[in-house]
Amino acid sequence: MGIRDSPTVTARRVTLDATVHRESRVTYPTRSRVTWFDRWLAKQVQGTIEAARVRLELWDGSSPYAAPRSTIGDLIVRDRRTLLGIAINRDLSFGEGYMAGRLHLRGQVRQMFAALSSAALVDPTWRERVSAALSSANDLRSARRNVHHHYDLGNDFYALWLDSQMIYTCAYFADPAMSLEAAQRAKLDLVCRKLRLRAGETVVETGCGWGALALHMARYYGVRVRAFNVSKEQLEYARRRAVRENVASRVEFIDDDYRNVTGVYDVFVSIGMLEHIGLRHLKSLGTVLRRSLKRDGGRGLLHFIGRDVRRPLNPWIRRRIFPGGYPPTLAEVTTRVLGPAAMSVLDVENLRLHYARTLQFWGDRFADAKDDVHSRFGPEFTRAWELYLAGSEAAFTTGWMQLFQVVFAPRESPPPSWTRSDPYELPGAPV
Amino acid sequence: MGIRDSPTVTARRVTLDATVHRESRVTYPTRSRVTWFDRWLAKQVQGTIEAARVRLELWDGSSPYAAPRSTIGDLIVRDRRTLLGIAINRDLSFGEGYMAGRLHLRGQVRQMFAALSSAALVDPTWRERVSAALSSANDLRSARRNVHHHYDLGNDFYALWLDSQMIYTCAYFADPAMSLEAAQRAKLDLVCRKLRLRAGETVVETGCGWGALALHMARYYGVRVRAFNVSKEQLEYARRRAVRENVASRVEFIDDDYRNVTGVYDVFVSIGMLEHIGLRHLKSLGTVLRRSLKRDGGRGLLHFIGRDVRRPLNPWIRRRIFPGGYPPTLAEVTTRVLGPAAMSVLDVENLRLHYARTLQFWGDRFADAKDDVHSRFGPEFTRAWELYLAGSEAAFTTGWMQLFQVVFAPRESPPPSWTRSDPYELPGAPV
Repeated sequence: MGIRDSPTVTARRVTLDATVHRESRVTYPTRSRVTWFDRWLAKQVQGTIEAARVRLELWDGSSPYAAPRSTIGDLIVRDRRTLLGIAINRDLSFGEGYMAGRLHLRGQVRQMFAALSSAALVDPTWRERVSAALSSANDLRSARRNVHHHYDLGNDFYALWLDSQMIYTCAYFADPAMSLEAAQRAKLDLVCRKLRLRAGETVVETGCGWGALALHMARYYGVRVRAFNVSKEQLEYARRRAVRENVASRVEFIDDDYRNVTGVYDVFVSIGMLEHIGLRHLKSLGTVLRRSLKRDGGRGLLHFIGRDVRRPLNPWIRRRIFPGGYPPTLAEVTTRVLGPAAMSVLDVENLRLHYARTLQFWGDRFADAKDDVHSRFGPEFTRAWELYLAGSEAAFTTGWMQLFQVVFAPRESPPPSWTRSDPYELPGAPV
Repeated sequence: MGIRDSPTVTARRVTLDATVHRESRVTYPTRSRVTWFDRWLAKQVQGTIEAARVRLELWDGSSPYAAPRSTIGDLIVRDRRTLLGIAINRDLSFGEGYMAGRLHLRGQVRQMFAALSSAALVDPTWRERVSAALSSANDLRSARRNVHHHYDLGNDFYALWLDSQMIYTCAYFADPAMSLEAAQRAKLDLVCRKLRLRAGETVVETGCGWGALALHMARYYGVRVRAFNVSKEQLEYARRRAVRENVASRVEFIDDDYRNVTGVYDVFVSIGMLEHIGLRHLKSLGTVLRRSLKRDGGRGLLHFIGRDVRRPLNPWIRRRIFPGGYPPTLAEVTTRVLGPAAMSVLDVENLRLHYARTLQFWGDRFADAKDDVHSRFGPEFTRAWELYLAGSEAAFTTGWMQLFQVVFAPRESPPPSWTRSDPYELPGAPV
């Protein structure tokens, strides 16, 4: 994955961080009297989450919830400001309130997230539309800065809850009973098989994370890989692993932006980067594809978080977790990236439930490591990450977000395989 | 497949048909002198097909082809009008000239079609853009009329060159050495497997052709099928087959337009209809989908001829073979059909080379039956169909056209299978 942001958004975030920090020193009027206005507001909010069977509870223990049927849990709002925020700008205020501890969930939390996510499956609000229209510019410099912001939180932090290979993208549970480790290996291998890699070929990877795929391709498929990333900590980790595993001669980890890819390759692959590029920059990826993929016999794979219909990323996730992030629709990827690059879509697979399961593993591991995270990063950071992981799991469970793997090839090039049965028929790769 | 047209286009076609018939009685000045203007025009045309290594030859045997490298064949233009037509409106005039016998191909004809098709892989011309903008309206009545025009040419005609089940869509050559008959059965079964049909479920099929898929589903998967079509001859054939195969109690063949589908079903399937609906009517298919597919556990499959990038159907094919036809892009299908119907794309497979092979079989069989066709329909009809089959084969071979199978499900519904390996792992269905 990679992260992009604009100076504007960054500036705004810094300001807001300061606000939050100041706020956490303030004593809230959490026991202030509940007025008729609070009750009226609460009723409006309750209406928007009624379908999720979640009961709103105010700071005095009262609730506008009157339905006789059972609930799956309570959403507890601790102060008037948070209530007002949720009524006006639901998604952002929910995240901010949860992170700051001014909002709590009581009950089957995983189920509540899924239900709230489903209940929100409506058309984008006017706020989301404006937001999408103002989606940030990810220039080379700010892109690098924001990748640093998220991915350089420290390899130790990610090691607490990712699998042993540090793979921070959707796994593939070929068998639903697989462990996370096995499912991540299965994902790497599925990607290699879909690409029909042949020994001696050249591969370029953009957004290589901690290098697991590049190393897997070089080690088990005998290809030569140039892998791009702008996260220094990730690159260092990946290079050390390449040396340790004796594939350093076949894998080059390059500290540069995807837009600076040079050379012509048999294969192009990018896992979990597209959703960070931003809508406006999708065309630049098309340009890179067009110039860096061999026209005859070339092929590629894009693996990304996407949508069925166009709408912006949850504003809280965009502010706190992935600034500049935008999960594109298939149509946006075909018209802005693949079409202009004269590529044909050969194959698309939607793995959203596999991402839900991956996130469930991450969430469980994060919960186990919670004390550790808490002592190193503090309560707000911990709650923010809990919310991010649980909310993402819910989004993939409910169909709010999709995970697409798209295989493509230059239009005039024959597809790399006659049918797509081979990835499922071949004997297991030595992983 | 189904066909749609507008009264406007139909009227135009009738007029042009009359022109052609009048023309065939006229003696062309085929031995008229080649002037400096003819030579200049020929040079322009030669430039546009140079990349295909096809040599243009004029009616006096002369050629502007000067390149020293070998050619794969000659394109012989018999008169000035045809030359002028090709210079001004290439695709339409090529088809019209070929059909009327005023233009011939000499050499490796299959290879020439593919090469000419590749050479044409450029941006749409202004003419194509205008044409797309004016794409016809397919109202219920004209749709029916035009289906009649193409599909009711007589079952005997199609029986001359289709497989024994009369399947007029892309086959699936699970093994490249398969016969056409086996590949068509494999296609039917692949569709059923991708849909994960379960005995007792209900299926609606729109554009059912001669009924092969509906019968296959009912017979081997134990589902109940309602299959829509507006071609009387096809429906009669399908109903007779249902009775003969003892599945008439489970398959209902309905003489009606896809827009009149009623009821709610577990499964929606449509093979080879989308490309005939026309861009403007894609939304109506979305409306049908939305109301006729069960939200919980429902799923569907669309199989259609499509494009990588937006451009209209070859104008000659549109005029002579499929009036109102338009092969949509994946983006058009997701934004106009599936998105508005709140469906998630689960899976896409591009089978363009399978369609090229299917068309190769059809072309070979058509060639074997040529004398028969010629004596029943005359030389123009025969040449038109030869061109249509050969041109289509070339379009799928070169990547000019795509064949997409798209599996989808209501957004909030869990996908019907955990992975997509099952269609390739199950033992063969009893076909």
